[in-house]
Amino acid sequence: MNQSSVRAPAAARPAARAAAARRRHSTAAPRSSLASQQAATAAPVFHYTEIELQTGPGISVHNIMPQLRAEVARLGVAEGFVNVLSRHTTTAVCINEYETRLLDDIRQFLRRLAPPTDPYLHNDLHLREAPEGWPGGWEAWAQQEPENAHSHLLSLMLGNSETVPISGGELKTGVWQSVMLVELDGPRKRSVGVQIVGTAPPRAGGQQ
Amino acid sequence: MNQSSVRAPAAARPAARAAAARRRHSTAAPRSSLASQQAATAAPVFHYTEIELQTGPGISVHNIMPQLRAEVARLGVAEGFVNVLSRHTTTAVCINEYETRLLDDIRQFLRRLAPPTDPYLHNDLHLREAPEGWPGGWEAWAQQEPENAHSHLLSLMLGNSETVPISGGELKTGVWQSVMLVELDGPRKRSVGVQIVGTAPPRAGGQQ
Amino acid sequence: MNQSSVRAPAAARPAARAAAARRRHSTAAPRSSLASQQAATAAPVFHYTEIELQTGPGISVHNIMPQLRAEVARLGVAEGFVNVLSRHTTTAVCINEYETRLLDDIRQFLRRLAPPTDPYLHNDLHLREAPEGWPGGWEAWAQQEPENAHSHLLSLMLGNSETVPISGGELKTGVWQSVMLVELDGPRKRSVGVQIVGTAPPRAGGQQ
Repeated sequence: MNQSSVRAPAAARPAARAAAARRRHSTAAPRSSLASQQAATAAPVFHYTEIELQTGPGISVHNIMPQLRAEVARLGVAEGFVNVLSRHTTTAVCINEYETRLLDDIRQFLRRLAPPTDPYLHNDLHLREAPEGWPGGWEAWAQQEPENAHSHLLSLMLGNSETVPISGGELKTGVWQSVMLVELDGPRKRSVGVQIVGTAPPRAGGQQ
Repeated sequence: MNQSSVRAPAAARPAARAAAARRRHSTAAPRSSLASQQAATAAPVFHYTEIELQTGPGISVHNIMPQLRAEVARLGVAEGFVNVLSRHTTTAVCINEYETRLLDDIRQFLRRLAPPTDPYLHNDLHLREAPEGWPGGWEAWAQQEPENAHSHLLSLMLGNSETVPISGGELKTGVWQSVMLVELDGPRKRSVGVQIVGTAPPRAGGQQ
Repeated sequence: MNQSSVRAPAAARPAARAAAARRRHSTAAPRSSLASQQAATAAPVFHYTEIELQTGPGISVHNIMPQLRAEVARLGVAEGFVNVLSRHTTTAVCINEYETRLLDDIRQFLRRLAPPTDPYLHNDLHLREAPEGWPGGWEAWAQQEPENAHSHLLSLMLGNSETVPISGGELKTGVWQSVMLVELDGPRKRSVGVQIVGTAPPRAGGQQ
């Protein structure tokens, strides 16, 4: 998948909200039964890929909803789910609203929660050992090792995986929700693990 | 599923604890192998539904364990899992003990963590744009838009999806655990996404 | 699975990082397609087991990565995922770096976030009722009930399940990530729910 650090265009939200309201008021039972029947006809596909991102400095939030939607559509998965994994110890995967000013609130809130200027044991590089066999030994390791204990703590608090159901070919997030990678020690090149599991409806007139 | 805002009746906990203790001391290996064999005989079902709730004012906690258990029993899933998704940017899905006084501790803890009275950029509605095409334009949008940045931040911290295994037809949560929707900006009508994935044992004397 | 309270030996990390870098620079598309094809040939296995641990006093962190890797290898799952569930109301499941000094930062951070010495309603045992039918009644219940509201709050914040994809037979966590049980009210005997879902490649020359 392509690198992605740009913000997604704002969706036509009132229309989406109206559509969501319509769906919410329809009776759930018949739709569920149909989905179950279709899903029972074939073994599910397990599809794993990684989204690569160039993140911003310090704390930054990256909307990966467009990539997730594109991948679900490309695979044609009708019933299933997407599991999204933060693959770094100083990033997190979250779901919330991708609104410009809220992103600044998130940054400020997280900085207050675990200030980078607080004392942390993990940041005393001179008291830590380099991993065994590090090329160049301790000096080389210490030179490239960031003082980022606060980023680890925030990653721990925010969480590192979220799972979102797919039904009727659509991710079932709410109208205002986006799946986002939260960078806590940028800028860096990062990869997000994305696994899509599910079944596609049989194609008309041929093998699946 | 029915609307649900009432608290679930307290389970007969000592009995449940005793049963759990018995299960824990049985040897795990044979049960696992059996489960694997059964599961391999059929393609799994993907079943998606939404639980609708009327939440309480401000921060409130809603136990959805009874609905999850009922749905697993109704589908007859023996081996699989339930994925529960918060579908709003100011709700969260959590697992903990549903105990009356602890629910008050949760409310007070969360209010201290992100006080509604703190300044937040997301709450400066006059500096934000209405979503494109909003009926009635900016004035109509601003009138209905709550000042709830603190609720977004708490949703981000608490997390929005949890996945619970099903084995032997039972949700494998611990004796004192309940899956709960945490409302952070109520009261509102909310929906929780519930996906059950798994296989049912073959029915005696007939097709599945 | 065996009891496990010891720390895992540090992996040969530079080698792992180099291997990860190689994987990251290979083109993703062919690998993904192959995985999808293999996965479509058989119904997936659902395998549930529990890891039992003796935890440390107060807050302690337990790396369960070695057990997860062993179980994935034992089952021979090539494409799928592992779901890990904290099965207690005062434990949590997290993903981060298992580094000695960082573990101390985590303990100190969590104690500041929800100090055990703060007042909590859940800790007023004299104002709570014993669960119905508790052997020995209220007195017996109160005697064994810990004052651990702070542990519940931390469990709520840290989260109770994480899901990690398996692809090509490997857990897709990043090089420095470990799945960890966080004990928030130890020492105790604890169990962690582990569900592995996925498909194994067909074995050469025989039935699967």
